Amino acid sequence: MLNQIYIDNLIKTALLEDNNYCDSASVHLLSEEQKDFAYFQAKDDGVLSGLNIAFRVFEILDSSFEYKTKFKDGDKVKKGDIIAEFSGKTIFLLQGERVALNILCHMSGIATATAKLVNLCNGTKASVADTRKTLPGLRNIEKYAVYCGGGKNHRYNLSDCAMLKDNHIDAAGGIKNAVSKIKSKLGHTVKIEVETRNLEEVRQALDSKADIIMLDNMTISQMQEAVSLIDGKAITEASGNVTEQTISEIAKTGVDVISSGALTHSAKTLDISMKFRA
Amino acid sequence: MLNQIYIDNLIKTALLEDNNYCDSASVHLLSEEQKDFAYFQAKDDGVLSGLNIAFRVFEILDSSFEYKTKFKDGDKVKKGDIIAEFSGKTIFLLQGERVALNILCHMSGIATATAKLVNLCNGTKASVADTRKTLPGLRNIEKYAVYCGGGKNHRYNLSDCAMLKDNHIDAAGGIKNAVSKIKSKLGHTVKIEVETRNLEEVRQALDSKADIIMLDNMTISQMQEAVSLIDGKAITEASGNVTEQTISEIAKTGVDVISSGALTHSAKTLDISMKFRA
Amino acid sequence: MLNQIYIDNLIKTALLEDNNYCDSASVHLLSEEQKDFAYFQAKDDGVLSGLNIAFRVFEILDSSFEYKTKFKDGDKVKKGDIIAEFSGKTIFLLQGERVALNILCHMSGIATATAKLVNLCNGTKASVADTRKTLPGLRNIEKYAVYCGGGKNHRYNLSDCAMLKDNHIDAAGGIKNAVSKIKSKLGHTVKIEVETRNLEEVRQALDSKADIIMLDNMTISQMQEAVSLIDGKAITEASGNVTEQTISEIAKTGVDVISSGALTHSAKTLDISMKFRA
Amino acid sequence: MLNQIYIDNLIKTALLEDNNYCDSASVHLLSEEQKDFAYFQAKDDGVLSGLNIAFRVFEILDSSFEYKTKFKDGDKVKKGDIIAEFSGKTIFLLQGERVALNILCHMSGIATATAKLVNLCNGTKASVADTRKTLPGLRNIEKYAVYCGGGKNHRYNLSDCAMLKDNHIDAAGGIKNAVSKIKSKLGHTVKIEVETRNLEEVRQALDSKADIIMLDNMTISQMQEAVSLIDGKAITEASGNVTEQTISEIAKTGVDVISSGALTHSAKTLDISMKFRA
Amino acid sequence: MLNQIYIDNLIKTALLEDNNYCDSASVHLLSEEQKDFAYFQAKDDGVLSGLNIAFRVFEILDSSFEYKTKFKDGDKVKKGDIIAEFSGKTIFLLQGERVALNILCHMSGIATATAKLVNLCNGTKASVADTRKTLPGLRNIEKYAVYCGGGKNHRYNLSDCAMLKDNHIDAAGGIKNAVSKIKSKLGHTVKIEVETRNLEEVRQALDSKADIIMLDNMTISQMQEAVSLIDGKAITEASGNVTEQTISEIAKTGVDVISSGALTHSAKTLDISMKFRA
Amino acid sequence: MLNQIYIDNLIKTALLEDNNYCDSASVHLLSEEQKDFAYFQAKDDGVLSGLNIAFRVFEILDSSFEYKTKFKDGDKVKKGDIIAEFSGKTIFLLQGERVALNILCHMSGIATATAKLVNLCNGTKASVADTRKTLPGLRNIEKYAVYCGGGKNHRYNLSDCAMLKDNHIDAAGGIKNAVSKIKSKLGHTVKIEVETRNLEEVRQALDSKADIIMLDNMTISQMQEAVSLIDGKAITEASGNVTEQTISEIAKTGVDVISSGALTHSAKTLDISMKFRA
Repeated sequence: MLNQIYIDNLIKTALLEDNNYCDSASVHLLSEEQKDFAYFQAKDDGVLSGLNIAFRVFEILDSSFEYKTKFKDGDKVKKGDIIAEFSGKTIFLLQGERVALNILCHMSGIATATAKLVNLCNGTKASVADTRKTLPGLRNIEKYAVYCGGGKNHRYNLSDCAMLKDNHIDAAGGIKNAVSKIKSKLGHTVKIEVETRNLEEVRQALDSKADIIMLDNMTISQMQEAVSLIDGKAITEASGNVTEQTISEIAKTGVDVISSGALTHSAKTLDISMKFRA
Repeated sequence: MLNQIYIDNLIKTALLEDNNYCDSASVHLLSEEQKDFAYFQAKDDGVLSGLNIAFRVFEILDSSFEYKTKFKDGDKVKKGDIIAEFSGKTIFLLQGERVALNILCHMSGIATATAKLVNLCNGTKASVADTRKTLPGLRNIEKYAVYCGGGKNHRYNLSDCAMLKDNHIDAAGGIKNAVSKIKSKLGHTVKIEVETRNLEEVRQALDSKADIIMLDNMTISQMQEAVSLIDGKAITEASGNVTEQTISEIAKTGVDVISSGALTHSAKTLDISMKFRA
Repeated sequence: MLNQIYIDNLIKTALLEDNNYCDSASVHLLSEEQKDFAYFQAKDDGVLSGLNIAFRVFEILDSSFEYKTKFKDGDKVKKGDIIAEFSGKTIFLLQGERVALNILCHMSGIATATAKLVNLCNGTKASVADTRKTLPGLRNIEKYAVYCGGGKNHRYNLSDCAMLKDNHIDAAGGIKNAVSKIKSKLGHTVKIEVETRNLEEVRQALDSKADIIMLDNMTISQMQEAVSLIDGKAITEASGNVTEQTISEIAKTGVDVISSGALTHSAKTLDISMKFRA
Repeated sequence: MLNQIYIDNLIKTALLEDNNYCDSASVHLLSEEQKDFAYFQAKDDGVLSGLNIAFRVFEILDSSFEYKTKFKDGDKVKKGDIIAEFSGKTIFLLQGERVALNILCHMSGIATATAKLVNLCNGTKASVADTRKTLPGLRNIEKYAVYCGGGKNHRYNLSDCAMLKDNHIDAAGGIKNAVSKIKSKLGHTVKIEVETRNLEEVRQALDSKADIIMLDNMTISQMQEAVSLIDGKAITEASGNVTEQTISEIAKTGVDVISSGALTHSAKTLDISMKFRA
Repeated sequence: MLNQIYIDNLIKTALLEDNNYCDSASVHLLSEEQKDFAYFQAKDDGVLSGLNIAFRVFEILDSSFEYKTKFKDGDKVKKGDIIAEFSGKTIFLLQGERVALNILCHMSGIATATAKLVNLCNGTKASVADTRKTLPGLRNIEKYAVYCGGGKNHRYNLSDCAMLKDNHIDAAGGIKNAVSKIKSKLGHTVKIEVETRNLEEVRQALDSKADIIMLDNMTISQMQEAVSLIDGKAITEASGNVTEQTISEIAKTGVDVISSGALTHSAKTLDISMKFRA
Repeated sequence: MLNQIYIDNLIKTALLEDNNYCDSASVHLLSEEQKDFAYFQAKDDGVLSGLNIAFRVFEILDSSFEYKTKFKDGDKVKKGDIIAEFSGKTIFLLQGERVALNILCHMSGIATATAKLVNLCNGTKASVADTRKTLPGLRNIEKYAVYCGGGKNHRYNLSDCAMLKDNHIDAAGGIKNAVSKIKSKLGHTVKIEVETRNLEEVRQALDSKADIIMLDNMTISQMQEAVSLIDGKAITEASGNVTEQTISEIAKTGVDVISSGALTHSAKTLDISMKFRA
């Protein structure tokens, strides 16, 4: 789903970072010809993301690499599952192991965290969305991991959706002026979202015909009132204090979207190990 | 402490990723001349890392950016602390905000997680070390964050320390042969570490005069016995099952180093916000 | 308005391309210390775009470069106007001249072409938009030039707006299925546009609640009927056969947007020369 | 003819620019396995350039891409001609379409414009040459397109031919001193060209034994006199006011070369479309 | 042994540098289909290094390239030896020739120079090591060439071994303080080397438990005394004034390592030519 | 004289290569504020090249760096000469030292070797030229160093001069056909050089009106005859077996240019040291 040129660049960056001169242990102790079988195994329950990227690490190193798997990104795995089996030159299996797992486990960790929040919204219309709280150079794979976990992607970056914050609104002289001015500048494919902190601002945002109204750090009852006020005339997005404990209640307010930075900035890794066949 | 050229490249990568064409909200609604004051505030207790990198984000965007702070990397912050105050053009404060925080909060999260484990080893000789379980392109800042948290850096990559695993040892015909062969190839500045899983392997590693012996996934009593056997003739490193729950007991076995991948791959972000002065 | 990091990279690419070893004429015949005054002069009427980028070329080469100008991007110039006056080291004025003009004249050519079409739509609600018909690596400056000419930017690339074409619609089993399926996958900030070739397809697109309906290569009367059918429930975009001859009539159909590839792929340069003061 | 490494880098730049995250319409609505047949068709008469680069776009995306064509760069096409037929995965045909056409149509536009001027010089000894008036990063493909149209390439950049302008000549104390000084510095493979604006300067350039004498913005009669004066002892190049209207008369003055910036900076695209087989 | 991604990047840099637009002689005079046989021949005695990199140059240019050889890196060649025979498209054999030989001859020159010094140490325990005196971007291939010549690699760069010089020692208040302080900061995989200039400093370095003691520009008798004093408790490295004339005597002092910058910065090329089969 | 963007990229490449994570000795033992004075001193006689590049290394690292010098590139230095004095932060003086000297000593070594050959041609008209025998990515600085030593630059690369070799000539059906064909393709700024191995080929090259005739591996008497035959109608270049022993005699044959690969591929470093003021 991602641009393969981006993926290959990312993998090469990682492989150069992990081996800036010589993998001496492997190069001096293993024969170039030695081949081995190995596999990925889940050490915990979770949702997969990044499997093809992990394979691609080995393909870039080793044209003889081969794999088979019954899993694909977005699939659930159980602790103990053999995720994939593969073979290749031992030197390259060892050189790719850490890079492949670093990516696969991080992405699967994000997918797993996302799936948890998505489940907690079941039965409501709320979707779970990511944010721009991603690591330098990794936004593509982190947002894709959210998608694999059943989440939705919020705007990719500053360029593809206009989000109006306090500073913008104050400088423009209020929400209505701000939306009106930005509309006169933007192309017809870009949506406009307004951050609101109270019902008065919600009302103004609604009047301004913003496409999306963010309900920022509101209480449950404020959100309920806002949803009722907006009544489908704009997309509603809840933001702030989204945790496993709070999300169900937020979802029940009827908001369309709940966005959470923790999906990407605080997801712990999904433990997947790579083992060699004896 | 890090190479500024690397840091600047990383920041530019992040800024291009976060704005591939135009930050329309800011560009169209704010005057180019508008300046503002803003500050970083800790929303939780933790240890700082990456503060200068966060400032550098704004310096790259805005030659008029100025900051003052009483904090430096490695310092503890308490929830509510004003970490730094700064001023600059509003457009660039907004454009840099997310990139700066993404880096600062991630690095500080790692430093905070590291400091917790380091504290749990107080009173023992054990130091806490990181691993190669880092994200593509981010190894420099993640390892530095471990250092800021009071941890030590394990080898940087495959090139600067020879770590002998099963595959290497089997291919060379045992630990002694493996160490002997690799010693004949390596320069005099590179240390050799051997992974061992039981006391028999520890004995062989000791005989081979390896510089470092890793005690991999051993029980507490195995580790105690290994430490006693090695008796200072090699550096001992405990690896596997290192958690906040287990680390104190591991440290008390007398090992020199305890390495933990979770420092880098599963640390949650340290919550730091950026706010504008009214 | 554009990301300065992108701009600087673009300029450096151009300067390396134009001087891969040594500008021998200047280096061997001019003193390093020699300074000169020079200016940009319009040789034709048009609209400016890229003026700061042109100055930046010289700033990157020469820290002593200084300029003054009464013009800014988007301003009209008349044949003979002195656009800007500047001074710097002669060697660097000569080394930057071609690169600066190549960018400035190309961008101003696009802005000028855009302004012509925009003028032809005066008195209607139609805005003029660009397309993805841009040159490799130059999309940022070409789309920005359209903006300077009074045009609007269509989607930046494949990622920030979902445009459904025949292939997509056929594979999904019709417009309605296609829009419904893509809506279930996409985040809430991304708009969906459907290409239609006749009124039947327009009706389906309208039913599918697409955000934007493209009227592709339709006759004037088809467009009129489509606009009347859609009646403000979706944004309408006319595409195909847009020329200086046809655009006024198209605009009068009441469409919201008229997109034209020629703005970027066939605009002739705006003739601006750089001259040295005697 | 061009360096494939340059070409591949250019294509990858364009593909990343056109898809910085995800081509959502194709990825979500088409099966990864779907394949299609498509073709390039000329919508106007012209000369081809960049055909292999267009194919290479698809090859980089899709290892299953296959094409056949009876045309090659430099060939004339007539409106309606099927230029090439090809097949590949539908997703990648759609992702490559715009990038491939943007390059192919731009290059063919330049080749077509060049061929027109070349034809207007038929029966004279004048060749038509390009200039350094090219777009950032695209000089290779633009100069190659001029070659495809039957034109010749002027110097590639500042480094590979020494062109002496007013500033150089004034600083060196006249044409003769300037040529003499630069000759003492330059290697034996680099030619020296002198810009002249009148017959007196032509005489000096001739005396200085410059390799090439540019007749800059001269009248037809001045050029005739200059050509007669120079009498084959240097290469003559006419520059300035070269249009479809003026070039024949310029060519008849007997100059060796006529250079024109418009070939590259103002050529309109050659209209070529890509269509899918039903 | 080296990271293939680094090697490919290096080769592509060289190929772009050697052909920034068009290899006109080959492109215009040779048929694209023409194939030829060619070979590398040693014009002098020496030790090979970089053979696979030389082949890789042609592989990157030409997928039809094939080679056979009985030699590998580290092998000795005699003047006149046919090192390898190969075939490929003539255009690409000519385009790759200079780049391939530039790398192969430089690396083999370093390997040959290294082998000479290594031979002069035969019968002693001294190994010959390189330094950081390498050319920008070429450290990988230059250090690998030293390895091919039988030498050992000193630290790769500033990051992977702590070398304490005067400035460090003075700032820290003496050798003992410096070693103690750096030990408290560094990870357990990094060795510490101290530069000493006399026996008093050697004693302090020994007391400080430095891993490696450099004997910098000492006389033979000083080195003998230092070796005897150190008595195997640290690795000893002789540095300074290492030439073909002096190295045997230095080696006989019993030092462990002799490092020489000349291996990399002053090795003359090994003369290898590429010839075409008639 | 060189493109500063190229130079800065080269320096950054070297600084990242020499410090991929952390210069631990300096960072942990020196205060960030400590400043020092240091100087470059010649340890041997030679000709300088690269002095500004060496200073630029420190400027990139340290905005407080300052230097003074009475020398410039091309100047002769005597053993013991203080080349430049400078001051800056101690950490950055140490971090830049090796990179600066690696470049400065290599370039000055080439300039010194060139000056020797140039001197040996004194009293003749022969200039000494370099070749394409340069190291990957370093052609710019190596060719510039030849210029500093009083040499001339041969063609920069395959693109800026057409050199016809056996393969080209055979494929085209002889020298005359080859020159004629390539002339019909090339622009008017590119010279054509023909390699000849005997007087018959010289005659054909002369007839073909090649700009430059290379006398490849000819004897002195063959060269004399060739020079007499050519009689100024083409530039003559001697190539092959050029050494300090043979060059005077070659120069006396009256050839215009003598080219030597050894200038760049086998020049030993010029020994320059960097020392700190006590």
